[in-house]
Amino acid sequence: MNISNYIKGICEKAQQAAEILAIATTEEKNEALTRISESIQSSARKILDANEKDLGEASKDKLDPAMIDRLTLTQNTIEGIVEGIQEIVKLDDPVGTIGPMQTRPSGITVAQMRVPIGIIGIIYESRPNVTADAASLCLKSGNVVILRGGSESFYSNQAIEKCIIEGLSKTGIPSTAVQLIATTSRTAVGELLTRKEEVDLIIPRGGKGLITRVSKESKIPVLKHLDGICHVYIDKEADHSKAINIAENAKTQRYGTCNTMETLIIHSDCAPVILPKLLKIFTGHKVEVRGDKKAKVIIPTIKLASKKDWETEYLGPVLSIAVVDSVEDAIMHISKYGSKHTDSIVTENDKTAKKFLRQVDSSSVMLNASTRFADGYEYGLGAEIGISTDKLHARGPVGLQGLTSLKWIVYGDGHIRT
Amino acid sequence: MNISNYIKGICEKAQQAAEILAIATTEEKNEALTRISESIQSSARKILDANEKDLGEASKDKLDPAMIDRLTLTQNTIEGIVEGIQEIVKLDDPVGTIGPMQTRPSGITVAQMRVPIGIIGIIYESRPNVTADAASLCLKSGNVVILRGGSESFYSNQAIEKCIIEGLSKTGIPSTAVQLIATTSRTAVGELLTRKEEVDLIIPRGGKGLITRVSKESKIPVLKHLDGICHVYIDKEADHSKAINIAENAKTQRYGTCNTMETLIIHSDCAPVILPKLLKIFTGHKVEVRGDKKAKVIIPTIKLASKKDWETEYLGPVLSIAVVDSVEDAIMHISKYGSKHTDSIVTENDKTAKKFLRQVDSSSVMLNASTRFADGYEYGLGAEIGISTDKLHARGPVGLQGLTSLKWIVYGDGHIRT
Repeated sequence: MNISNYIKGICEKAQQAAEILAIATTEEKNEALTRISESIQSSARKILDANEKDLGEASKDKLDPAMIDRLTLTQNTIEGIVEGIQEIVKLDDPVGTIGPMQTRPSGITVAQMRVPIGIIGIIYESRPNVTADAASLCLKSGNVVILRGGSESFYSNQAIEKCIIEGLSKTGIPSTAVQLIATTSRTAVGELLTRKEEVDLIIPRGGKGLITRVSKESKIPVLKHLDGICHVYIDKEADHSKAINIAENAKTQRYGTCNTMETLIIHSDCAPVILPKLLKIFTGHKVEVRGDKKAKVIIPTIKLASKKDWETEYLGPVLSIAVVDSVEDAIMHISKYGSKHTDSIVTENDKTAKKFLRQVDSSSVMLNASTRFADGYEYGLGAEIGISTDKLHARGPVGLQGLTSLKWIVYGDGHIRT
Repeated sequence: MNISNYIKGICEKAQQAAEILAIATTEEKNEALTRISESIQSSARKILDANEKDLGEASKDKLDPAMIDRLTLTQNTIEGIVEGIQEIVKLDDPVGTIGPMQTRPSGITVAQMRVPIGIIGIIYESRPNVTADAASLCLKSGNVVILRGGSESFYSNQAIEKCIIEGLSKTGIPSTAVQLIATTSRTAVGELLTRKEEVDLIIPRGGKGLITRVSKESKIPVLKHLDGICHVYIDKEADHSKAINIAENAKTQRYGTCNTMETLIIHSDCAPVILPKLLKIFTGHKVEVRGDKKAKVIIPTIKLASKKDWETEYLGPVLSIAVVDSVEDAIMHISKYGSKHTDSIVTENDKTAKKFLRQVDSSSVMLNASTRFADGYEYGLGAEIGISTDKLHARGPVGLQGLTSLKWIVYGDGHIRT
């Protein structure tokens, strides 16, 4: 197979499909999603068989357990995929909605209409459910999608894509509205990243290696989620019990997620009271605690944290603690070491809270809440295609609206410019 | 001078300034803008002297008259710059505004806050007034700006920058919030385009050569305005007098602007009546008319248009005419040859209008109005930093809001995720 021609062909088919999908009605898109969910439901056995095949290869290739866990599909996860699609059917369609109209002194009336972005390329690893999730979100928002899954989920992804095509074939939406790149060749990704004439946006989902490579190579704008080095800052005016609960939840509810706390910052006034209690809790969870010199004075058994600790997304049961003397110092630490993902302050002081919410330049900034809430479902987006740590177009959890853009609509009645 | 170190130094100073500017109050920013406008007003003589120096070089270098025209400053244009800044003072500050709040089933309350993008690099040609305009828009929206003007306006730009620094030095906003790259070395642009750790967005303003080069080289997201191949489609149900006025205005009000009509599309039903009238009008304006075979049958004196004509932004007194048999064919022509800038339909039929407004994938789509209205001032943005033909982040005229982004704000009261 000539990879370059193959990718070119996919992109050209995507372009044709995009013109039709962009103007499909909400009913047509919901019909398509329903057909897809039915097809996935009735093909559960085939998808699980394909997944077995991937799992067999994975154990031959000695993939690490975390990756195998992400790769594994069960009857339950397939039910989850089906329910997820049904949820997307229920979401409001942003496409075609028109914002407030404003009549200008010239007499023209101006408004903005939500429109799909066009063609989106999604490059992802391991989790085969992304194939269905991403396709559904793109479809509902009127975007054609080109999917490129990881080689480890090659058969699972193809089985799911087959269901999507089968579902679409029963509707007026072209089945090329969702295309899976059916080769494990790495060159295919490189080729896709050059097709800026057709593809409007690339969304990589996976480990840092993948995201760094895609960002570096892409000639197409990339909406990416890089690191999640999230902080909780316990202020001197924090409610101690809220602070302890939030710190425990933010660190231990799940270790491997991007919105998990990696560094706890605490004011020196309350550190002597709170830190010993937290150490006990974290030790109970088998979380390794590290800290700066001031933290180590209060809880001497911990390991001294290095600069590298502040910059690390552990994605595991490790936590670093910094003791500061003011909210300004906390903000400075976050600005220096954070990844602009999610940061939370615990305080009862309104003024301090406002300062933190305004000044911390992260995609989500929270008051008296666990960083674990940074999530499209929790925010009411219905679903998310990812969490953006970029600053343009969309920050934080990206749902249907983040997959659209706004064009200007002008109504005149023979108006000319003078 | 080591260019690489020089640009690095500028970017680092910009980063320090960005943290302060991002949280400056509206009053502080307006105060800064007022001081800058006063400084420009009182230094008019010095700016004009510097401009004389640029014009002297330009005539030595035999720059073309259009470029010299764009380069030339007068007492009047300086008054215009001053008034422009005063207008920006009056505009609402988008930064820090919080959208609708939504309380979620978990109990957290979620909203979005407008925040500056951060550091913006603007690379522009000839017009020295961009130095003041762009700096003012960025300041008001809380963004630090790095300016790189054309070598032909080297002295003018520096004179204006001096006024900006003088103005800022009287306020609490660091004078490094606006920095002009003070070298004509082309390497400097290349260096700036690699500083993705500091610079969040690049906006090129100028000819196609500049924009293509910047897009190609930049490692930083680019918000660009490429071509303006704008269409007016006269439908079979158009009001003839509106159609003729709009076509005349869209083509002849100004030739060199991006929102000028380059191709007229007309329905075959009304072409025989309207085209002869339009030919007379355009001939009166000394506009050269070209057309497809069907147009030539109706107005045989015109030149036959080639494929190249449909793809060309003339930026001058030339117009191509295509005759079609349906609104669908008009939309297809625009989709094939347009540049996603601005396209207008003239029709009295609501259904046809809606179809066109919905289906044409351009940054501005108009009904019964001249394409010349596609402009930040006309849309009520107060001012514009440019017109984006990109599809992400901002489409069409970009004002203060387009220079901001949204971060999520979450309010809890000790909420944790379960």
